[in-house]
Amino acid sequence: MAQQPSTSTDADHAPSVDELTPPDRTLMGPGPSDVNPRVLRAMSTPLIGHLDPSFVEIMNEVQELLRYTFRTDNQWTIPVSGTGSAAMEAAIGNVIEPGETMLVPTNGYFGGRMASMARRAGGDVVEVDAPWGEPLDPADVSDALAEHDPDVFGFVHAETSTGVLQPDVPELTAAAHDHDTLVIADTVTSLGGVELRVDDWDIDVAYSGPQKCLSCPPGASPLTLSDEAMEKVLSREEAPRSWYLDLSLLEGYWGDERAYHHTAPITNVYAIREALRLVAEEGIEERWARHERVAGALKAGMEGLGLEMNAPDEYWLPSLNAVRVPEGVDDGEVCDALLERYDLEVAGGLGDLAGDIFRIGCMGHSARPKNVIYVVTALGDVLESMGADVDPGAGVSAARNTLEE
Amino acid sequence: MAQQPSTSTDADHAPSVDELTPPDRTLMGPGPSDVNPRVLRAMSTPLIGHLDPSFVEIMNEVQELLRYTFRTDNQWTIPVSGTGSAAMEAAIGNVIEPGETMLVPTNGYFGGRMASMARRAGGDVVEVDAPWGEPLDPADVSDALAEHDPDVFGFVHAETSTGVLQPDVPELTAAAHDHDTLVIADTVTSLGGVELRVDDWDIDVAYSGPQKCLSCPPGASPLTLSDEAMEKVLSREEAPRSWYLDLSLLEGYWGDERAYHHTAPITNVYAIREALRLVAEEGIEERWARHERVAGALKAGMEGLGLEMNAPDEYWLPSLNAVRVPEGVDDGEVCDALLERYDLEVAGGLGDLAGDIFRIGCMGHSARPKNVIYVVTALGDVLESMGADVDPGAGVSAARNTLEE
Repeated sequence: MAQQPSTSTDADHAPSVDELTPPDRTLMGPGPSDVNPRVLRAMSTPLIGHLDPSFVEIMNEVQELLRYTFRTDNQWTIPVSGTGSAAMEAAIGNVIEPGETMLVPTNGYFGGRMASMARRAGGDVVEVDAPWGEPLDPADVSDALAEHDPDVFGFVHAETSTGVLQPDVPELTAAAHDHDTLVIADTVTSLGGVELRVDDWDIDVAYSGPQKCLSCPPGASPLTLSDEAMEKVLSREEAPRSWYLDLSLLEGYWGDERAYHHTAPITNVYAIREALRLVAEEGIEERWARHERVAGALKAGMEGLGLEMNAPDEYWLPSLNAVRVPEGVDDGEVCDALLERYDLEVAGGLGDLAGDIFRIGCMGHSARPKNVIYVVTALGDVLESMGADVDPGAGVSAARNTLEE
Repeated sequence: MAQQPSTSTDADHAPSVDELTPPDRTLMGPGPSDVNPRVLRAMSTPLIGHLDPSFVEIMNEVQELLRYTFRTDNQWTIPVSGTGSAAMEAAIGNVIEPGETMLVPTNGYFGGRMASMARRAGGDVVEVDAPWGEPLDPADVSDALAEHDPDVFGFVHAETSTGVLQPDVPELTAAAHDHDTLVIADTVTSLGGVELRVDDWDIDVAYSGPQKCLSCPPGASPLTLSDEAMEKVLSREEAPRSWYLDLSLLEGYWGDERAYHHTAPITNVYAIREALRLVAEEGIEERWARHERVAGALKAGMEGLGLEMNAPDEYWLPSLNAVRVPEGVDDGEVCDALLERYDLEVAGGLGDLAGDIFRIGCMGHSARPKNVIYVVTALGDVLESMGADVDPGAGVSAARNTLEE
């Protein structure tokens, strides 16, 4: 742990901590994204109790808005009281029973996290391989299903660590269902930004985070389960290993009974309600189109600078753009310089792609033309100052032209 | 689940949800309490990234302020990314290893929750009994320690379900340590409102919630572990059963490394920072004294009305006042009437005390003279209107006189 002043326990010497004045960042990394001022304002609303009849109404509204955004009729659609990883563990920890097998992908950071959570739930893990930076091949998934006959198959719809969109989702879910395998989809970086149709695509369970394409501060995270998946959860032989994330207990609170389980994060529920209202006002399909349009300009800007996208166009992920780091440039130095000179957050690569890519988000309220122009300008300037072979003027022109198309 | 309009998945028919306008409640129940406007304002601060160097500074400040509030030098003092029950499960799920034994109390709702979490962590549970509405007797604890030789002993410092303060904490911890038993304290309803000295009292692990005496919206919850307790956690043979709450992984984020684990609930960290700044500005001992003073007036007001406190004065809990429901009165009807006529939240009893007590909080920003006068006035009026034998005028006078002492 970081060292702290040794006076901290002396009651006569209370710590003196200044007013909160964080820097004014522009958030174009892998999340969080910039938050719409309406959502921030909603968070300064005074609290009501988590069992107040008025809060129950708010819960209903949030569920309805979440269903709209997930494109599902699933009754069991809630915000989990924690950040995206809590929703992820709620999904895996409730669906997987000890001794069951989960098939997970190896083509990015979050497949590894799925494996870790499945093991902690008492499950066995088998893998379907693809290189980092590529999607799963449906043929490989079919082979793995045939070989391992897993109880659950998890995949990542939008891989935040590689900037890859998984195509062919209906093909994957159909293959899984042929083996009576339930499908859990990680939609952390797709929900509200990239086409996602939980019902039409026959996804059994999907979880997400609020701080990506929903542009909502983290703390209450979307989760949806089909009736069939929920039936499996409710008929478990052994209780899930987390009390906090036990969906059979949460059913008492979010279901008809409205019984106390734990205190909901009231302000985070206010926030996601407002963030989802913005989705509904824009319209979900128009929102997907906006992300594609604005991120398309970002991509054009990057290519105009002379940089290369890591993913081929077929599985380009508009919400998270993986851009190759030019030869001889240190990605960490670039990110630091962008933060220092431009108050701009973008990120480097992780795992197998560490040092190889920049990860530039284009999500929710951050997916605006002005942010695109800003990031292309700033990155062009910083890379040029480091001696990279880039053309800042051409980058900005390409982005602007694409925006004006 | 509650029924929703069937149009919710029709993209042409986005749900129409109005602006957020919750009622203007006065929160005098078992939590959440009223939030200071400064904390609400902090929550509308735009985000920075969870790995931003400026956020690391904020994390350090929060840790320093938490140590001050817990009265501890424990390096390992953090806000857990979830509500109080997440901090509770982080404590129990990391400290208890499969096959270990935890001694838990039966004198309130939260001892039962401890037992449930310990079992899910793979532990065995043994109990030390006391009736609901009474504290543990140190002699009974000693006997139970001698009989069961548990690895961990959990107790509730301030029982929210019964309004009982556990006295003799140093005696309990000394007895436990004589058996090499680690002590976990539930300080959900005491931290920041009632005298609590983690180091002086030799408590090994303590967790709390932000929405009680800290008057902070729920979502990031205090947890502190001694070096010895953390050593046990870091030398576990088997990983804890929750990935999200695994303290050995969180050590990488909150410790020197600052490595990504999960996205912190940034806005909730902003909020608890501001709430803890208010604690430091007031001074922790003055804050305890204020709770005792203001809640003392509340208690005098209740007695002035002609009502009876459930707990004897020796273990009266200022932050949560358990008041006997008068003969012939339905507690649920009273609570509903207070909410409807006065926009005032108080709660009824739980478990063994269901129907027998009102639970009236006096916590943090809610622990103000004006709230005391309001709750005494409102409760007097409602009870009188229901035909109970109360003296509203005498209640208000008694409260006012005590405030003026």
